[in-house]
Amino acid sequence: MNKSTLGLILFALCTGISCSNQQSINTEKAKMEKTESQNDGAIFPKGEKAPADYFTGTVYLQMLAQKTESNDYSIGSVTFEPGARSYWHKHPAGQTLIVINGKGLYQEKGMPVRTINKGETIVCNPDVEHWHGASPESQMTHIAITNDRGDGGVVWLTRVTDDQYNAAGR
Amino acid sequence: MNKSTLGLILFALCTGISCSNQQSINTEKAKMEKTESQNDGAIFPKGEKAPADYFTGTVYLQMLAQKTESNDYSIGSVTFEPGARSYWHKHPAGQTLIVINGKGLYQEKGMPVRTINKGETIVCNPDVEHWHGASPESQMTHIAITNDRGDGGVVWLTRVTDDQYNAAGR
Repeated sequence: MNKSTLGLILFALCTGISCSNQQSINTEKAKMEKTESQNDGAIFPKGEKAPADYFTGTVYLQMLAQKTESNDYSIGSVTFEPGARSYWHKHPAGQTLIVINGKGLYQEKGMPVRTINKGETIVCNPDVEHWHGASPESQMTHIAITNDRGDGGVVWLTRVTDDQYNAAGR
Repeated sequence: MNKSTLGLILFALCTGISCSNQQSINTEKAKMEKTESQNDGAIFPKGEKAPADYFTGTVYLQMLAQKTESNDYSIGSVTFEPGARSYWHKHPAGQTLIVINGKGLYQEKGMPVRTINKGETIVCNPDVEHWHGASPESQMTHIAITNDRGDGGVVWLTRVTDDQYNAAGR
């Protein structure tokens, strides 16, 4: 099993029906965190913690829709706590991000880092290496529409180091 | 030119670059309305009024992303004022709705009306006749991800009459 397949399986474990089953056995503390998230005006629950193998810091994933016969994409809401970010990665068929809360950072390989804000849409073209996450001082939530045309939605690469992140966040 | 082609052209006139150009010549009143919309915590501007040929009541459309080489969908944020709704219509390749504010109504032909709330995702399968809109007492905003695989994103049908809407809204 290669690394990208493993990544997809780890993601799948946090999603859909598996996710609902997991929620039912959550601790009271986790339930309280979710309630707080809903009460502070958030549109979606924060969801489950995203796997530490592909994210640095605290990141939550709430799946909103699975790939279907007519939709060759899945949709999730991803919340990054301040300072948290994805690993470098690429999408074989591309991805669209819609920032719905907070302020974040987005960088494509070889390009300057961009600040991304609530209300912005970012189109990630196929096979472009990039990372995204929260800014150092603010949480960031985006909807991610990830195309998957049979070769998987994501290929995970290397960690965004503290040096890379700190340089970007300045 | 058939009716669905005309509908798509009317929609296109409210989107993308045309939309930006139109915004620059908006009246001060319209600018103030948009600012109010942004100040009340909305994620996106309300956008431009959707064409009265396909919507009943006051509906706004803000395009978020156009179809690209890798994304065979467009994305828009649609805001329905209380009582407003689409005409009956269908999508040749389907559509996904994500409710981001308020409370609305959704009905597929021959099925009971459904109440849809902030945080809900609705998958509209290809060629299923349906309509959606706000509830009588509440505004509703949804993101619409509309698949378009070369045969257009939407086929417009008949008006949702007041009788149909009032029966649904009870």
